[in-house]
Amino acid sequence: MPGYKFTCSSCGWTNDPSPKLLSCGLCESPLDVKYMGDLLPSVLPRGWSGPPIPLPIDRQEDHLTLGEGNTPVVKLQKIYDLIGVELFAKFEFLNPTGSFKDRGTSIMISVLKSMGITELVEDSSGNAGASVSAYSALAGITANIFAPTTAPNPKISQIKVYGAETHLIEGTRADTTEAAVRFASENSLPYASHNLSPFFIEGTKIFAYEVFEQFNGDLPTDVVIPVGNGSLYLGMWKGLVELEKKRLIGTLPKLHCVQAKSVMPIAAAFDGRNWDVADLKATIAGGIAVASPPRLHQVIEVLRKSGGTAITVNEEEISSWHTYLPANEGIYAEPTSAAAFAGAKKLVDSGRINAGARILIPVTGFGLKDSPP
Amino acid sequence: MPGYKFTCSSCGWTNDPSPKLLSCGLCESPLDVKYMGDLLPSVLPRGWSGPPIPLPIDRQEDHLTLGEGNTPVVKLQKIYDLIGVELFAKFEFLNPTGSFKDRGTSIMISVLKSMGITELVEDSSGNAGASVSAYSALAGITANIFAPTTAPNPKISQIKVYGAETHLIEGTRADTTEAAVRFASENSLPYASHNLSPFFIEGTKIFAYEVFEQFNGDLPTDVVIPVGNGSLYLGMWKGLVELEKKRLIGTLPKLHCVQAKSVMPIAAAFDGRNWDVADLKATIAGGIAVASPPRLHQVIEVLRKSGGTAITVNEEEISSWHTYLPANEGIYAEPTSAAAFAGAKKLVDSGRINAGARILIPVTGFGLKDSPP
Repeated sequence: MPGYKFTCSSCGWTNDPSPKLLSCGLCESPLDVKYMGDLLPSVLPRGWSGPPIPLPIDRQEDHLTLGEGNTPVVKLQKIYDLIGVELFAKFEFLNPTGSFKDRGTSIMISVLKSMGITELVEDSSGNAGASVSAYSALAGITANIFAPTTAPNPKISQIKVYGAETHLIEGTRADTTEAAVRFASENSLPYASHNLSPFFIEGTKIFAYEVFEQFNGDLPTDVVIPVGNGSLYLGMWKGLVELEKKRLIGTLPKLHCVQAKSVMPIAAAFDGRNWDVADLKATIAGGIAVASPPRLHQVIEVLRKSGGTAITVNEEEISSWHTYLPANEGIYAEPTSAAAFAGAKKLVDSGRINAGARILIPVTGFGLKDSPP
Repeated sequence: MPGYKFTCSSCGWTNDPSPKLLSCGLCESPLDVKYMGDLLPSVLPRGWSGPPIPLPIDRQEDHLTLGEGNTPVVKLQKIYDLIGVELFAKFEFLNPTGSFKDRGTSIMISVLKSMGITELVEDSSGNAGASVSAYSALAGITANIFAPTTAPNPKISQIKVYGAETHLIEGTRADTTEAAVRFASENSLPYASHNLSPFFIEGTKIFAYEVFEQFNGDLPTDVVIPVGNGSLYLGMWKGLVELEKKRLIGTLPKLHCVQAKSVMPIAAAFDGRNWDVADLKATIAGGIAVASPPRLHQVIEVLRKSGGTAITVNEEEISSWHTYLPANEGIYAEPTSAAAFAGAKKLVDSGRINAGARILIPVTGFGLKDSPP
């Protein structure tokens, strides 16, 4: 018996974990992992010497790792001179497949493999697909990755190189998801969605533990995260809450969301405005172009609880930071990651982040994966 | 006065360091950094808690860092099943610009900047160029990067994205070097060559210190490195020798060189065979396609001293491992890095590495930079 259950993110319904269970049996909301009692993990990330991290993996041999995590934090002096607030970047693009997704995938695939899964389905605009393809290769699991035909070539090529069955879908990002769900259902395969799998956030939450260690407990005051589905955003929060429960931290940072103005369901919901899929426009920030994030209500809840703001940035702002970062800071980020810097500047300019703040931004994906034409 | 000198790698000639001094005043051989006395560094890599590392940087504020180093080591179980010898990979492609070059560049650019350099010249098949371009951006130094027109597009694009003046040169790799040297001379600029600058190896040697820490002093018996110019190979050796002098390690690992059969000056010299630039053929392992490595005699010396072997692999072997690694181990390496795995297998098959060995291979560059067409 595992030391955890699945619990509904809305109504509290609880059930035993299973690879195909992705939504609440009562209200259909997404599920989370809930640990029973004071479970101490037997598995820890490589070289980890911080506080114990509860994980849904009991045996070391079940932990499939490509050395994900342990990414560097770099202080950006020039941006400080530019915006007047101390700013740190955590280089999540230096994960093994080039994006933060590897944190979640490592845990998700490890658990699915230990549950006997040999084939799975996932859909992605690119980064999660490459990540799931890589860890599935390591696990000996057949991965069916669905991606939109509009995903950048390096990302599609990367999904293929790790050996996944790659299904390219015409139409919108939502059409890709629909095709993946249908394929999973028709073939009785688990839909290992990085948006829905409760295991995924158990991996991304390690981000918070690392930040805690790297800042010696003296956390940044504001974390600015590009948010599409919110898997890093919600993982960060879950990790922080666990650390708070252990009384290792006092004041929690404000977690801010940045979205592209072209695809802004979370920012609109935060402001109480209407936003509909029909309002969707094209954006260079493909990693956060998610029109209907299934965990939207959870993201809004964390925005409220942490005192964060959801903000939008336009294409010009994203593009301008996408060019600024490599040419001035030596950071080759994908446009999605550049959006967070644009958002941070707006939050400072508007007074939502004040001069005494210390901002942390995760640089979520490598520019090599989404390079200029 | 810095606590180090430049010393000739052949005749022992010694001189004060200077940004433009790249060869011996007597015999024209390449130079190395030699520390005077028991210099303890005031600068350490981020989070470093191992033995002190002598570095040519005295002041913390002179150390320009993008969080390079601290790369993961992963044990590859499937390859063990395949070749019958324990094998570890160190993911050097998870450095900030996607290759091990960042280790050397960080130190080289830091020193040059502290010496007042504001513009420099470098030539590269791609990885070093991107690395120098990135750290120059951070330093506020104008970089002129010379690269062959045949370099992979993602690498050229990456050099440009960090803002370097990019000079694409038709012809051979040697023509690119020649153009860079001429440009540097005509414009009285320092030629910040990753092959010749004595500072570069001071950065790559940190690789050895990390391996020492990550293996808890119980070093691998054999390290198999893809070698073009040998900057990682010679850095690894320098680090090991420093650790040995401090009596922190006893038996040193054998350092093996892997070259493409198409460009094999070191393997030929090791075997006492003739090899000439005229023998050069095309190879997919662009990172080690160096026909006249300036530090060849140093590489041969380390091969002898460490008991290593220089071996060649053909295009089919490189290509086959380039495909195997992502699809089975989840490691997306560039072809140059795949060559090392092909070489390791040959060394095992031929009995040069025995069944009780523990092999370490640095995965030097990210496959995203040199992806399949």
